[in-house]
Amino acid sequence: MTIQTTFPQTGVEARQLIREGRFIQPTSGVAPNYVQANLAILPQDAAFEFLLFCQRNPKPCPVVEVLEAGQVEAILTSPGSDIRTDVGLYRVYENGVLVDEPETLESHWRKDLVTFLLGCSFSFEHALLANGIDLPYYGSERNVPMFITDIETVGSGRFSGPMVVSHRWVPADKVVRAVQATSRFPGTHGAPIHIGDPAAIGISDITKPDYGEVWEQGSSDEVPMFWACGVTPQSVAMSSKPELMITHSPGHMFVTDLKDEDLAVI
Amino acid sequence: MTIQTTFPQTGVEARQLIREGRFIQPTSGVAPNYVQANLAILPQDAAFEFLLFCQRNPKPCPVVEVLEAGQVEAILTSPGSDIRTDVGLYRVYENGVLVDEPETLESHWRKDLVTFLLGCSFSFEHALLANGIDLPYYGSERNVPMFITDIETVGSGRFSGPMVVSHRWVPADKVVRAVQATSRFPGTHGAPIHIGDPAAIGISDITKPDYGEVWEQGSSDEVPMFWACGVTPQSVAMSSKPELMITHSPGHMFVTDLKDEDLAVI
Repeated sequence: MTIQTTFPQTGVEARQLIREGRFIQPTSGVAPNYVQANLAILPQDAAFEFLLFCQRNPKPCPVVEVLEAGQVEAILTSPGSDIRTDVGLYRVYENGVLVDEPETLESHWRKDLVTFLLGCSFSFEHALLANGIDLPYYGSERNVPMFITDIETVGSGRFSGPMVVSHRWVPADKVVRAVQATSRFPGTHGAPIHIGDPAAIGISDITKPDYGEVWEQGSSDEVPMFWACGVTPQSVAMSSKPELMITHSPGHMFVTDLKDEDLAVI
Repeated sequence: MTIQTTFPQTGVEARQLIREGRFIQPTSGVAPNYVQANLAILPQDAAFEFLLFCQRNPKPCPVVEVLEAGQVEAILTSPGSDIRTDVGLYRVYENGVLVDEPETLESHWRKDLVTFLLGCSFSFEHALLANGIDLPYYGSERNVPMFITDIETVGSGRFSGPMVVSHRWVPADKVVRAVQATSRFPGTHGAPIHIGDPAAIGISDITKPDYGEVWEQGSSDEVPMFWACGVTPQSVAMSSKPELMITHSPGHMFVTDLKDEDLAVI
């Protein structure tokens, strides 16, 4: 088998290589400017409540596409795809416990599974980079720092819990631009949740993220900015301990055929 | 009983007067700058498919709030409200046939009914008016002209059909402003669907709207603009002939506590 050494440049190319087992690595930097999505797969009996949870919390849970029970092709955003094979690495949870981390879902797939593709931060990170805002972790093995806040999501049935945010340092003279650039993309978390004092949203120590790696402040003119994070729906769903839930493995996103600009509202 | 002669100025005031039977008339001009909503009530077994239909067609079907089965208070946007009494006039359809047009839902309410509040055009019309774009029908007994187009919505289960649009004449030098002003409000239909030649979206005669009243072109420098219309989800739902469906009577909207600006994304 040939292992791919250069990064695929389109959604179709990325999914094909992943399906063939030739690109099993984090997808940051893959298919630049194509929309990548978080994956959450749940049994049908939880689907309405979860979709409504996403509708009530559009910043942490922006829905890119929903595949009805048993459907495996993301026909609207990624024709020809197969959700059982086109993510590099999956995580399978039973009653909230990780039981498997397979490269395909062939042995886990069921006719009653509903697939949710949720926007991820890559699209607005491209907008930040394009506006001269540096993201030191971007394209590296490191991950953005993420924090559990004291901001409660709006519950829906069995789904409720605190919002998780990602944190970025932004030079004071770029803060307005960072708000503007990310506001264009409500489909991928959109405008920030908070600017400034971390304690105001329940973060006691900015050097101790709950997920990802710490990002040291570069200079005293940098301001902490916080955006709603796609870890929120996964963490909220998991804490309800669903009988079965399948997600992507961190960093191994589903690459769609949409371009970032397709999701811009202005 | 005292009949109200001046218009209520807030959502709370409007709902209270309507609940007391003292304001049974179209709500255009009521509680200026408060968000008003289209109403669609369906049995729970259709709720996931309908919510997904709205998610797939956000321009014609922007969801303002969903009340779970049996819930009668729009707790997120209108605390203290009661969906069974706070709309002036309802329409009750059984298997797609209008069977009643009551002032309350007391005799029709069921524990399995899910309520959808969907954005209406009033919010972006305020933005058009604020930008000097004249809407001759606004605040009158007349209604905006609406057309069934040849643009297919994206189906979800039993729900599918053509998109309905509203039509407005806009002076050529205000077209760009009209796009900008309405793009801020994706939660109430947002940016236009089409600008210019009506035939391009399947409208053969601009003087013969499918719903509402014709709006005569004022001068030759006016350009036809078209926005997705909230009649779409009602018409699509109705054509699936649900066992029971309840809507507002045309013009009699549900007035929320949200302000238009609460729905602006930028």
